[in-house]
Amino acid sequence: MATDPPLHAIVPAGGAGTRLWPLSRRGAPKFLLDLTGSGRTLLQQTVDRLGPLTGEDGVVVVTGHAHVPMVAAQLPRLRSENLLPEPAPRDSMAAIGLAAAVLRRRHGDVVVGSFAADHVIGDEDAFRTAVQEAVACARAGYLTTIGVEADRPATAFGYIRAGAELGVAGAPSARAVRAFTEKPDAATAQQYLSTGEYRWNAGMFVVRAEVLLEQLAEHRPALHDGLLSVAEAWDTPGRQDVLDRWWPRLERVAIDHAVAEPVAAAGGVAVVPARMGWDDVGDYAALAGLLPRETPGAAAVLGQTGAVLTPGSPDALVAGRAGRTVAVLGIPGAVVVDTGDVLLVTTQEHAQDVRSLVDAVRERGLDELL
Amino acid sequence: MATDPPLHAIVPAGGAGTRLWPLSRRGAPKFLLDLTGSGRTLLQQTVDRLGPLTGEDGVVVVTGHAHVPMVAAQLPRLRSENLLPEPAPRDSMAAIGLAAAVLRRRHGDVVVGSFAADHVIGDEDAFRTAVQEAVACARAGYLTTIGVEADRPATAFGYIRAGAELGVAGAPSARAVRAFTEKPDAATAQQYLSTGEYRWNAGMFVVRAEVLLEQLAEHRPALHDGLLSVAEAWDTPGRQDVLDRWWPRLERVAIDHAVAEPVAAAGGVAVVPARMGWDDVGDYAALAGLLPRETPGAAAVLGQTGAVLTPGSPDALVAGRAGRTVAVLGIPGAVVVDTGDVLLVTTQEHAQDVRSLVDAVRERGLDELL
Repeated sequence: MATDPPLHAIVPAGGAGTRLWPLSRRGAPKFLLDLTGSGRTLLQQTVDRLGPLTGEDGVVVVTGHAHVPMVAAQLPRLRSENLLPEPAPRDSMAAIGLAAAVLRRRHGDVVVGSFAADHVIGDEDAFRTAVQEAVACARAGYLTTIGVEADRPATAFGYIRAGAELGVAGAPSARAVRAFTEKPDAATAQQYLSTGEYRWNAGMFVVRAEVLLEQLAEHRPALHDGLLSVAEAWDTPGRQDVLDRWWPRLERVAIDHAVAEPVAAAGGVAVVPARMGWDDVGDYAALAGLLPRETPGAAAVLGQTGAVLTPGSPDALVAGRAGRTVAVLGIPGAVVVDTGDVLLVTTQEHAQDVRSLVDAVRERGLDELL
Repeated sequence: MATDPPLHAIVPAGGAGTRLWPLSRRGAPKFLLDLTGSGRTLLQQTVDRLGPLTGEDGVVVVTGHAHVPMVAAQLPRLRSENLLPEPAPRDSMAAIGLAAAVLRRRHGDVVVGSFAADHVIGDEDAFRTAVQEAVACARAGYLTTIGVEADRPATAFGYIRAGAELGVAGAPSARAVRAFTEKPDAATAQQYLSTGEYRWNAGMFVVRAEVLLEQLAEHRPALHDGLLSVAEAWDTPGRQDVLDRWWPRLERVAIDHAVAEPVAAAGGVAVVPARMGWDDVGDYAALAGLLPRETPGAAAVLGQTGAVLTPGSPDALVAGRAGRTVAVLGIPGAVVVDTGDVLLVTTQEHAQDVRSLVDAVRERGLDELL
């Protein structure tokens, strides 16, 4: 085990990114897109940033069958054995639990860490420092999360309430987690911010594989047994048969709810705070905040566009197309997404409502646009 | 003269329609567009509605050289002698004065009436009744305008202040004009509306050719002399030489300012009020008000579009393109104009500001988009 990396990363690459429609589609979900204009997709950036922590072959990607070809094309150095196709989405506990069980069979009781494929992190040094502390906590037996320092009363994220310092060797900033909370309303978020005790839940969990599977066995025994059956057969010719039998019956549950919340209540979760420029790019307001602007208030422009003019429209976001001029007049915070078959116009104020717009598109029978 | 129609109509077909960019362009100005979804362009509708008043060959169109081919194509029954090309725009007094002088040479002292090529009129019966009264006033020697009954305190139109009844035979509703006023501010417009004395100036003037040219000779003698020189040569081989000599020197002035205002001050202008569903389609707010909607608040849609969804965007206006779905979320009064090379997004509140946007496009060196 001496050559084993300190961390095996699990990257669940799923989720429709509905609030980023029509940039994000069923066939081209958010994690497969370059949303930062960097030339790398969110998935590629995620794997790029994990490499120094995991070594060459230390990243496993869990994704839906339909996305396997695109994921493989975007990550040409990923070994096929490290690309785990899910027959159907079963939420994050199944995806992460499967990968943890497969990794335990392959490598023993290694430290695993889950990192979403569709988030951005501006300060990679801070990220890696936090993960190294989290690995130390994981080795000490904790289910460890990285808590992003809240710099505004965001209502789009869940929160983690930190408790006492843990004094784990190699993790000087780690604290116990008192509770996980759902996305708050604005007043609650403001109150969270004022206490200084709350961090944003970035969905990152670092834990020994053995510990995670034990916690799963305790809190979700049926899901544990199903995942272990699948993992047993994964690297054998029997994989498909076992998947056909077990996968449709697995409970759909998020890892937060399945294990993090009950284990936190029992004192078994640690949080490593980090200020690392994290965002989950959850909607167009988030995207508008991430993209560079030539001057304050100037338009944020994504993709190859023609000229963009935004008089009277400070902080506009324009995702255009080559050869087309886009003019936005008198709409502060405008969002204009100009794709080949769909044109979306809204404002950042309504960024969360794009989800219901997508429902309306479906109700109109325009499934081919989703 | 017995077979001469009661009215010779002059249709000045000019003006860029800048506030309707990018629908309206230099090469395809507003009057050449079907902006009502009727299948007929504004120019065609104008000529259609004049036919019953003028007879077959009683309409003369004055337009810029560049637009002659398109005008001829849209009006295949117009005789070429009734299409008067201007070498360069010289405002409405030159266009109407030239046509009046040419018509006087051809037909004698006929009644002429000027009607813009890019306005809409919903109630054509009311329009024709008003024009018939205006013709009676013209025969009695008045420079006669048709005053549109103001049903709201519009700030986008000039106003006509009506005075005493005139008692002209055949024109029971005609009144003297006390004054023409420029576009008012909102408070002034409200005050105009409350008096009941004011009508909107639709730029329609009906007058004997002889009377108009005498008024022009009195108030703008140089312009009068230039136009008469051009008209003398119009139907001769010498037309181009005379145009080359005179046209560049003609004063640029609107007919309102050149003759209507001074003649009104002297008591020589009549107004026939009319309630006829008139609008000059001056900007996108006007256009949004004219187009049909399936239900109150539903989107007004212009042209061949794909699906249009406008949740949270009451009274939106969408000019789309075939095969593209347009979704507008949370922007009341939105205006989305999706052309091949330009996408404009604004609101009806900013409809008048489109003109300055066009200036900004020019300043960016994007002249090919104008």
